[in-house]
Order: sequence, then structure tokens, then C-alpha cells
Amino acid sequence: MNQTQKCDRLLKDGERIDDLQRKGYRIIQDPSFFCFGSDAVLLSGFAKPGPKDKVLDLGTGTGVIPILLAARYEGPVFTGLEIHPGSADMARRSVLLNGLEERIRIVEGDIREADRLFPGGSFDVIVTNPPYMAEHSGMKNPSEARAAARHELLCTIDDVLRVSAALLRSGGSFYMVHRPHRLAEIIDKMRKVRIEPKILRLVHPHAEDEARMFLIKGTKDGGQWLSVEKPLILFDENGERTKEVRELYGSE
Amino acid sequence: MNQTQKCDRLLKDGERIDDLQRKGYRIIQDPSFFCFGSDAVLLSGFAKPGPKDKVLDLGTGTGVIPILLAARYEGPVFTGLEIHPGSADMARRSVLLNGLEERIRIVEGDIREADRLFPGGSFDVIVTNPPYMAEHSGMKNPSEARAAARHELLCTIDDVLRVSAALLRSGGSFYMVHRPHRLAEIIDKMRKVRIEPKILRLVHPHAEDEARMFLIKGTKDGGQWLSVEKPLILFDENGERTKEVRELYGSE
Repeated sequence: MNQTQKCDRLLKDGERIDDLQRKGYRIIQDPSFFCFGSDAVLLSGFAKPGPKDKVLDLGTGTGVIPILLAARYEGPVFTGLEIHPGSADMARRSVLLNGLEERIRIVEGDIREADRLFPGGSFDVIVTNPPYMAEHSGMKNPSEARAAARHELLCTIDDVLRVSAALLRSGGSFYMVHRPHRLAEIIDKMRKVRIEPKILRLVHPHAEDEARMFLIKGTKDGGQWLSVEKPLILFDENGERTKEVRELYGSE
Repeated sequence: MNQTQKCDRLLKDGERIDDLQRKGYRIIQDPSFFCFGSDAVLLSGFAKPGPKDKVLDLGTGTGVIPILLAARYEGPVFTGLEIHPGSADMARRSVLLNGLEERIRIVEGDIREADRLFPGGSFDVIVTNPPYMAEHSGMKNPSEARAAARHELLCTIDDVLRVSAALLRSGGSFYMVHRPHRLAEIIDKMRKVRIEPKILRLVHPHAEDEARMFLIKGTKDGGQWLSVEKPLILFDENGERTKEVRELYGSE
């Protein structure tokens, strides 16, 4: 079977295949549904799993973060947990499309029950790009999957942190992307579940802008010492992607 | 009495007078003792007291922060609390030297007892440049005043926050400069005393460096919403002070 046939077989109506610009990997997305954003790309550049690590992506959507991390790192294996059947199905087909069945497993299930779906302390690394908006705040997106990706309808930051603390081994790493307006609350809540914030990076659209996102690494049972890395600036004064961001987005 | 006579009268052995490059204000310092650093200058640029505000500087040292803020803002009045008699004396003489007796009062006393020295809720703004190093960590500086300025020998961050929460009115502002390695702990502790972090700014020596300091504004009884401002970069690629920093240091 050639590539075109393989794609036809894996693609459903309304879906398209996007090139991830990394090792030839591609991803199936449905633009009317939900497409991954820059937050997922930035998180995949920030997380640093070791070669033998078992990595869990909480709320993997179409699986973009495990696929990007599999492209970037040779050794680790990944589990992507996704509650939405349509997204989980697309993620599974993208795994097949890239021949990554040995490295990425997609599990359909609820983040709030993740600590019952997997054994306690069974992951070395957890990555997550959770919904940013507290359930009661901001406009709800009319599309169900989009809404759940952006609002804490199906799980809150408390749920994410509670199950992460339960599923990470002691010394394991937690990587998350989130919005600065909730940074204080999140640092507080991470510490409450003994995921100590260790590395923080602020993401600014331009050097003169407020931070729009933050990337944070926590260590389960880690000691108190936070490093704040150099700011990540997305666009230079000419509106072009900065060198670091171009590298994050990759190219063949 | 002319300026030279006034200076002679106010200056003790080993002391010198430095120009603050702002409204002609000057400060008395003893280089063998302790001189203010860039953290004080950055904090005085970050704090924004309103025209009728009563402002308290916890651990004022030689009084540099109230003097810089008095130069920058017309209306507010300041109290500087300092435990070290030599520093408090120098601060009082600097206030006289600048004719600021009506606007700045220096009180000799212990931060840990500040909530007994002043009425509860009696300040609109608190500023503080506290010792950075936990008491047990790092090298102690041999000089007593220097050591107390850098290590939590005489007061801890818990003391500073406890008395700040007691002395700030509800809705009042707390401004602090501190080190990033303690940011998570400090955010956590601010929230515990209901000083909600509202504005955070990271200070990087160069754009490519980790943050070396942070500036934080908290609001007593404030709602949860943090803004992370554009990074403050001290030096450009040629090693020159950036425009913003040149403005902070002022000039005649």
C-alpha cells in the first residue's frame, strides 16, 4: 500500500493531514473541530523526557504532543489520555499514519479518573496542556470539543494536579503550559500536591508585551528552588518568528 | 549655612554623599558598611504610590527607597523602618540633607514588631527589599549590617509578609523585590496572608540570561488575576544599560 492509499484509509470526511515539519511526521486534524495551537508546540519544546521515560499526556486531543515529542526524543514511550472519542480516534489514526504504534498508546478516558486508569507512581513524566479558563469565566466556545479544550468543563486544574501527583513517581517531572493570569494560583496548588515548581518560562508575543503563556516544570517531592529561564519571545520587531520559535516549529 | 557646611555637619567619618541623579537628591552612605544596590533602584521604579498614600518601607537601610520615591512622586508620605541604629541615623541625616523632613519619617525598630509599632491597616502601600537568603543558606557576610541585609538573620520572609498583611489596609498594595529561586515559596506565602499577587516582573541581566531578580506587586484581599509584565532587561548586547534602565537610574 502506498502513502496515498494509507492516507485515504485513515482519513475521514472533513479531516485533513498536516505536516509537523519534524521527521516527516504528520497529524490528522479536523479544522471544523479543533486544531492544535502554538501552546502544544511550545510545550513539546519545553518538556525533556529521558530516553527510558514513560510519559503521560493528560488530555492529548489529537495526539500532537506525544507525536512531536516522539519526533524529538528517541527513547521514551508515551500514553495519551483523551476523553473525547472523536479526538482519541483521530489521535490513534495519526499514530498509525506515522508508524508510531510501538511508542504511543492512546487511551480514551477521563482525566478525573486517570488515577484509577493507571497504577500510582507509574509515570516518569507527565505533560499537559489543560483548559485555561476557569469554568465560570469567559465566553464558552459553542463547539463541544473546543469548549472542553479551553474551559474547565470536564476537568479543573485541581483535577489535573491531583491525578498528576498520584501518577508521577517521586522525583518525576511535570510539564505544563498555562496562562499567566492563573500563575499564582497554580504555583500554590502545585505545592499543595507536592509537585514543586522548578523551572518557569514566560512566553511573550513580542519583547514589549505582557506574557501570554507560561511553561512550568515541577518535580514530584522536589526541593524548593525555582529557576526562571530567559523569556521566550515569539516574534521579533519585524513581526517575524524569532530564531528559537522557528526551530521549535521545525523544518525538514 | 551653605551646602558645603550643611554636608560637613551631616557627614560622619568614612561616609560619603552620592548623587541620586533625581531632583538633586543625595544620599549618605558608608562604603565600608553597606551601599544600596540596583534592587532598590528597580523597586523604586516598580512601586507606584498614589498622591495621598501613606507608604511604609520595611527595612529601609539608608532610606534610599523612600528618597527615590519622594523624588518620583509628589504627594505620598513615607515611613522607613530600620533596625540598625547606624543605618537609621544615616537615613535620618539624608532626609535632612534633602529637606524631606515633612515627607519621610525614619523609625528605628524591628520588622518583626512592626505590627505593634504602627496601627493595623494604617498604610496604603508597603515596599520592601528584604534579605534574600534563607538564614541557613549561603555564605554569611562578615559585616553585621551587610549580613542582615542579605540573610534572614533578623527577619524572614514570613515575618515580612505577616506584618505587611497586618499593616496594609484592605485593597492596599505590597511591592517587593526578591530572588527568583524563592518565587514559588513567596507566591504561596503571599496568598496565605491574603496578599494576592497581581503583577510580576522578571529582571534579566541580558535577554539571554535567566532571571536574577523579580519585582512583585500584591494587593491585600485582592482577587485572583496575575499579570506578568514584559521582561526587564538590564544590559543590551553591547553590555550597555538599556534605555529603560538608564531612565530608572535618572539624570539631571
